[in-house]
Amino acid sequence: MAEKKKVCIVGSGNWGSAIAKIVGYNAARLDIFDSRVTMYVYEEIINGRKLTEIINEDHENIKYLPGHKIPSNVVAIPDLVESSKDADILIFVVPHQFIKNQCEALCGKIKPTAVGLSLIKGFDRAEGGGIDLISHIIQRYLNIEVNVLMGANLAGEVADEKFCETTIGCRSKEWGSILKNLIETDNFKVVVIDDVDTVEVCGALKNIVACGAGFADGLGYGDNTKSAIIRLGLMEMIKFAQTFYKSSQLGTFYESCGVADLITTCYGGRNRKVSEAFVKTGKCIEDLEKEILNGQKLQGPITAEEVNHMLKIKNMENEFPLFTAVYKICHGDLKPQLFIDEIRNHPEHIVKFSNL
Amino acid sequence: MAEKKKVCIVGSGNWGSAIAKIVGYNAARLDIFDSRVTMYVYEEIINGRKLTEIINEDHENIKYLPGHKIPSNVVAIPDLVESSKDADILIFVVPHQFIKNQCEALCGKIKPTAVGLSLIKGFDRAEGGGIDLISHIIQRYLNIEVNVLMGANLAGEVADEKFCETTIGCRSKEWGSILKNLIETDNFKVVVIDDVDTVEVCGALKNIVACGAGFADGLGYGDNTKSAIIRLGLMEMIKFAQTFYKSSQLGTFYESCGVADLITTCYGGRNRKVSEAFVKTGKCIEDLEKEILNGQKLQGPITAEEVNHMLKIKNMENEFPLFTAVYKICHGDLKPQLFIDEIRNHPEHIVKFSNL
Ligand SMILES: NC(=O)c1ccc[n+]([C@@H]2O[C@H](COP(=O)([O-])OP(=O)(O)OC[C@H]3O[C@@H](n4cnc5c(N)ncnc54)[C@H](O)[C@@H]3O)[C@@H](O)[C@H]2O)c1
Ligand SMILES: NC(=O)c1ccc[n+]([C@@H]2O[C@H](COP(=O)([O-])OP(=O)(O)OC[C@H]3O[C@@H](n4cnc5c(N)ncnc54)[C@H](O)[C@@H]3O)[C@@H](O)[C@H]2O)c1
Repeated sequence: MAEKKKVCIVGSGNWGSAIAKIVGYNAARLDIFDSRVTMYVYEEIINGRKLTEIINEDHENIKYLPGHKIPSNVVAIPDLVESSKDADILIFVVPHQFIKNQCEALCGKIKPTAVGLSLIKGFDRAEGGGIDLISHIIQRYLNIEVNVLMGANLAGEVADEKFCETTIGCRSKEWGSILKNLIETDNFKVVVIDDVDTVEVCGALKNIVACGAGFADGLGYGDNTKSAIIRLGLMEMIKFAQTFYKSSQLGTFYESCGVADLITTCYGGRNRKVSEAFVKTGKCIEDLEKEILNGQKLQGPITAEEVNHMLKIKNMENEFPLFTAVYKICHGDLKPQLFIDEIRNHPEHIVKFSNL
Repeated sequence: MAEKKKVCIVGSGNWGSAIAKIVGYNAARLDIFDSRVTMYVYEEIINGRKLTEIINEDHENIKYLPGHKIPSNVVAIPDLVESSKDADILIFVVPHQFIKNQCEALCGKIKPTAVGLSLIKGFDRAEGGGIDLISHIIQRYLNIEVNVLMGANLAGEVADEKFCETTIGCRSKEWGSILKNLIETDNFKVVVIDDVDTVEVCGALKNIVACGAGFADGLGYGDNTKSAIIRLGLMEMIKFAQTFYKSSQLGTFYESCGVADLITTCYGGRNRKVSEAFVKTGKCIEDLEKEILNGQKLQGPITAEEVNHMLKIKNMENEFPLFTAVYKICHGDLKPQLFIDEIRNHPEHIVKFSNL
């Protein structure tokens, strides 16, 4: 009999706690997993009590996911190395600015046969002007297979057990089935594909498009214009992936990580919201972040800047007019009122016969 | 010098009048077109005056597109044969229940070298249980090349000159460029592709998905669930096209006729609206149509029925659980509260490795 697989969740914020509900439930239920799931919790004192203590005694993360019980087989541990040392599966779900430090701390301290699953959205800037994927960073530090999970998954709705879908990008068939078993429930349905980098790229780029959707809302355009912006953004996402990740497949953008997450983000997300207010109020992005998001940071403008940095070096800004316009507007180099003019003559608008 | 191409618009409703603004503008401006554009107008008496007279004297269709000037080079003609007899390009834009009668009237009376461009959304039931595309019906009656135009194009917003995109599905390269010239403006951008049948299929099927989106809204689900429904609907649209129209291409669904029109319809459209009210009020679809739409007919429930008729014969209902559930709910065979249960175990939710 194969040994039961041990799972560690690295991170315990809003999304980490929602996924802990699911992973705890499945690990307790399914034979192939050790029912004890560890969760690395960055220790904080809340109302005079340690957060780890609250989670282990009351089974609720009252700071990041109040109102939801976390299964009692999920054990909060304040020491990163301690929490992850026996794990066969490491689920990374921390804001991306913390990942490098955590990887440094874990280096050489985990099972060499472990696999990672990254739920982290965003890019990092690579040395030499390019872009680094978070899963590649983890892979380089820890020398393990790193897979990714991305989708139309607002954490609160997942915790509420509202029906939704997600995409796992997985590098090996064997782990594909295991991870699907670990993550899937009746209300959280998993599609596994092997186009891993594209899945991760979608999760980062969609936030740029959401800024564009927000500008359109702020400018008072209707449904036709907004869906044109979403579509042109999607076409630039596809082109970006196909240009910089050669094996990228068109079908991946039809998965939850692609079109579905893009729609959710362009209608319900915070990047859209702040971008709309940016046009309507004339205030700068930083001030609006503080006012509207209570100090939380926006992903879209940063990602637009990272992407632009790379496109500029490669002399490809003209081929991505929507990404470029969003960057310029966020950066104060272009009036939002000129947004549509920048995408009016998009390279997409051609006669493209398949036999041309 | 090649002869200038003459254009006739067959239809003068909301969409027909909006497109007349564009076509009139381009025909007047561009050398390759005869500046006189004819428009077949189903004659009606409005405030004691003929509609054709109002359009020709006041240059406004006060019934179907009030508040917008139609260019004076567009000439309204109440006789169908008269309006179209010299045309090189026939633009069909009537509600689909009238198209067969009109084709019968036109049969043998048009230029044999003319081409058609159909803007009509919807299927017809074919003899023998299948589905007939409107463009195929026109082609059979008139024996001309029939191309199609579909996209995220609410007529009012197009007439308001709000930026948007559209897709022309065209059977020949030569006509592709000509039709793009005829239709494109700075605010109405055209992509031409040759996957004609898929373009048309998208325009009909999206209304089924919009009913599903409306049910989800009525049931109080959030953004995750709604985008999962839109995505699963899109996957069934793709599967339907690939099953029944062999040359259908994946890229077509990324065009305005695909994902963009689907988004617009699932957020702004009337099928969504009535379906939401259906869940919330418990009234039947027919009554809601009357109450909410002022007697106008819904496309989604009819299309769901036509598609189901075909899927049932081919024993394929299980492969299209979303289309099937929408049909059953509209038809009173399934409670809307059970909608999500019907798509929970969707055949999409698998491990699908490209090298599997
Ligand atoms: N929230 C969502 O709906 C959602 C959905 C999908 C993906 N994601 C992604 O998941 C990742 C995590 O998001 P989240 O919403 O769980 O984040 P969050 O903002 O809720 O969580 C903050 C986390 O950071 C930890 N932390 C705070 N200070 C720290 C420090 N100095 N060192 C180490 N850790 C520290 C906290 O303990 C907590 O676990 C992000 O990449 C996000 O984009 C979030
Ligand atoms: N309105 C839109 O936003 C829009 C957008 C894209 C596509 N479409 C499609 O375009 C097509 C036409 O839509 P529309 O909005 O212009 O329709 P509409 O309901 O505004 O127009 C009704 C048309 O039917 C004509 N008519 C009425 N009774 C008739 C009869 N007995 N015989 C012949 N003609 C008669 C009227 O004169 C008018 O031209 C439809 O297939 C629709 O799906 C509409």
